[in-house]
Amino acid sequence: MPEETILRQDLHDLIATFARFGATDDGGVCRLSGTAEDKAARDLFAGEIGGRGLRLDIDGIGNMFATAMLNQASGDAVLVGSHLDSQPTGGRYDGVYGVLAGLLAAEAIVARAAAEPGAARRNLVVVNWTNEEGARFQPSLTGSSVFAGVQPLESALSLLDGDGQTLGDALGAIGYRGAGALTLTPRRYVELHIEQGARLEESSTDIGIVAGAWAARKISVVFEGEASHTGPMPMPRRRDALRAAARGIETLYDEVEQGAHASAARISLYPNSPNVVPSRAQVWFEIRHEDEKVTAAIADRFLRRIGAAVAPLGVTATIAIDEKRATAALDPEGVKLVQSVAGDLGFTSLVMKTVAGHDALALQKRVPATLIFVPSRNGLSHNAREFTEPAALDKGLAVLIETLWRLVTAP
Amino acid sequence: MPEETILRQDLHDLIATFARFGATDDGGVCRLSGTAEDKAARDLFAGEIGGRGLRLDIDGIGNMFATAMLNQASGDAVLVGSHLDSQPTGGRYDGVYGVLAGLLAAEAIVARAAAEPGAARRNLVVVNWTNEEGARFQPSLTGSSVFAGVQPLESALSLLDGDGQTLGDALGAIGYRGAGALTLTPRRYVELHIEQGARLEESSTDIGIVAGAWAARKISVVFEGEASHTGPMPMPRRRDALRAAARGIETLYDEVEQGAHASAARISLYPNSPNVVPSRAQVWFEIRHEDEKVTAAIADRFLRRIGAAVAPLGVTATIAIDEKRATAALDPEGVKLVQSVAGDLGFTSLVMKTVAGHDALALQKRVPATLIFVPSRNGLSHNAREFTEPAALDKGLAVLIETLWRLVTAP
Repeated sequence: MPEETILRQDLHDLIATFARFGATDDGGVCRLSGTAEDKAARDLFAGEIGGRGLRLDIDGIGNMFATAMLNQASGDAVLVGSHLDSQPTGGRYDGVYGVLAGLLAAEAIVARAAAEPGAARRNLVVVNWTNEEGARFQPSLTGSSVFAGVQPLESALSLLDGDGQTLGDALGAIGYRGAGALTLTPRRYVELHIEQGARLEESSTDIGIVAGAWAARKISVVFEGEASHTGPMPMPRRRDALRAAARGIETLYDEVEQGAHASAARISLYPNSPNVVPSRAQVWFEIRHEDEKVTAAIADRFLRRIGAAVAPLGVTATIAIDEKRATAALDPEGVKLVQSVAGDLGFTSLVMKTVAGHDALALQKRVPATLIFVPSRNGLSHNAREFTEPAALDKGLAVLIETLWRLVTAP
Repeated sequence: MPEETILRQDLHDLIATFARFGATDDGGVCRLSGTAEDKAARDLFAGEIGGRGLRLDIDGIGNMFATAMLNQASGDAVLVGSHLDSQPTGGRYDGVYGVLAGLLAAEAIVARAAAEPGAARRNLVVVNWTNEEGARFQPSLTGSSVFAGVQPLESALSLLDGDGQTLGDALGAIGYRGAGALTLTPRRYVELHIEQGARLEESSTDIGIVAGAWAARKISVVFEGEASHTGPMPMPRRRDALRAAARGIETLYDEVEQGAHASAARISLYPNSPNVVPSRAQVWFEIRHEDEKVTAAIADRFLRRIGAAVAPLGVTATIAIDEKRATAALDPEGVKLVQSVAGDLGFTSLVMKTVAGHDALALQKRVPATLIFVPSRNGLSHNAREFTEPAALDKGLAVLIETLWRLVTAP
């Protein structure tokens, strides 16, 4: 169809355009929530929404809703979207692909609905969820969790960044702490995203259909020692928080068994001066596994060992954050629907699980949610070299359009 | 002498007054070089200099020289001083005690010289050396090293802090990047400082007389891995720079033998986001020992092991900084002089070595230098709870005055 040829061209142009906001020297993107780069991307997205005759609503946590009224008689909506924020070392596809594909899918579906009056039984809303990455403000999935009712708005607005600024103030500063809300009733959610892993590439599969998610345990530990001079203070009398943190990191990897994923990716050290034995270190740990019991067992062993591991250093280990993310199942009907759509379009597909968190997992707590993957080269993500073939992006968009069309037109 | 009673009162008042600049909630001091707190302390010091009729000169690296002309016919000077900057977790005595005691000693000696016309054969200069601590700008001992001619002014001015600001710009911003210089010829340097260790306290000794310094090796290592998603990226394919840094820290402590001191007290991590496998970590290591050969041997073993230790993680280790501080001997005549002064004043004294770096060690490279210690409670320093008994501070001041008097009056 000429319509879709145009759309595909738009998709690649739009991805390239959005990649300019927060562009890094190595070709990547650094667009943290609530920054000037985030504002620039949001402003352009708002412009694209208006240019397509869609209605924009912004809620209290900065989620942006672009509504296409396909059936004035209906108060129901199918939601589609993802996020425009990125990691400091982000690529140009993570999140942005899902938002822009959703926007172009809405444009295609508006055209189809106009060509088939009465076919559309419910409306379509494209969404940009706030702070999916959790890079500047932890935890992640903020906007979608507030929308799903699993995180209170006030607690979300009071999340602090490393400099002590709240997410609420950051959103206010860029003009995206909204007073609006989605007025329609959400009935379904669909998200298109790059895989961020290598399973589709390794199996030469076009489309991944996510049936559920691995469990995750996110634990932040504060190691408390005592500041002293790195020179004269006798070694046995030192209480070194960084030495303890290093031991804690080694302890985690000791306990990670085959098949589990784990990381210690963020550290905050005080006073962080070469001549002062560190008095305080905080480390953010993650443990992930397909089986919740395994993440729990690893976390239990880690937490049981860590105090004893650092005690000989005169350092205490205190749990500051312990976030349990249960395994999640996405709507089985949605999996079947995408399987049939992919088959009808002549694409190969694979039902799989996601290890990474996605807004769709938060949405599933409120409405049936569906998550669709396209391949990532070398499984590389949160990296400037993150890449998905244009043809693969096109296949994802085609599947998204057809899936959404069937959802808005279904009896 | 009533004169000295007044001086001692002044000393304690002055220390309390200077402790207000950069005061922390826990009773400590955070007064980093080139900050507003540093400016406030420098401004008050300049006022105290003027109030005592001394001449102030500020050189290109911000060293402050307060000159007492005791003998107009002489172009020679005895220097006394220390530093007004502190660590982020500094106490109220480290450095400040030496500068203020020097100022009050100069006042006392001006009075003695006036009482004994012709007795003083050379002049006296009180100095505040810039960035002794090396907390904000590495390496430490900056002002004294430039004065001693062992660090070029330009390289010192271009030292960068963690935010990429140069020391030169920081000094300019607070108005202490001077155009002046010490016009007299330095002949001797004397510094009074708290021990920062526990030897004097443990041996109940009044005065420490420093014969020399331990060797130090300061090595900064950059660990380079690759950013990726902490979730889906398979463990064997991760290249985790923080995991490597933790292993590097453990490796250092493995190699530290009995009698040596070592630390890893500063880390810089990128991107430092909980959901991104870290691509880059830099760690600042220190190794110290009385015997240079031992620091070299430990450093060699550490550097030989570290590359191999992190290679299995797909991470490289590169040496960014490798600073060798040789053992140093301070002027033996100065040691004898302070021994006799302490004895004449009825104080016990101990000839010892310093583990910590001090401006006196840099000055010794240009002129004969003498370093005098007073006890530190529990050897605690670079800590808000750093403390020296007022009576012990008074003894140090008395020794300093008599030592300087003998130096300016000696044939």
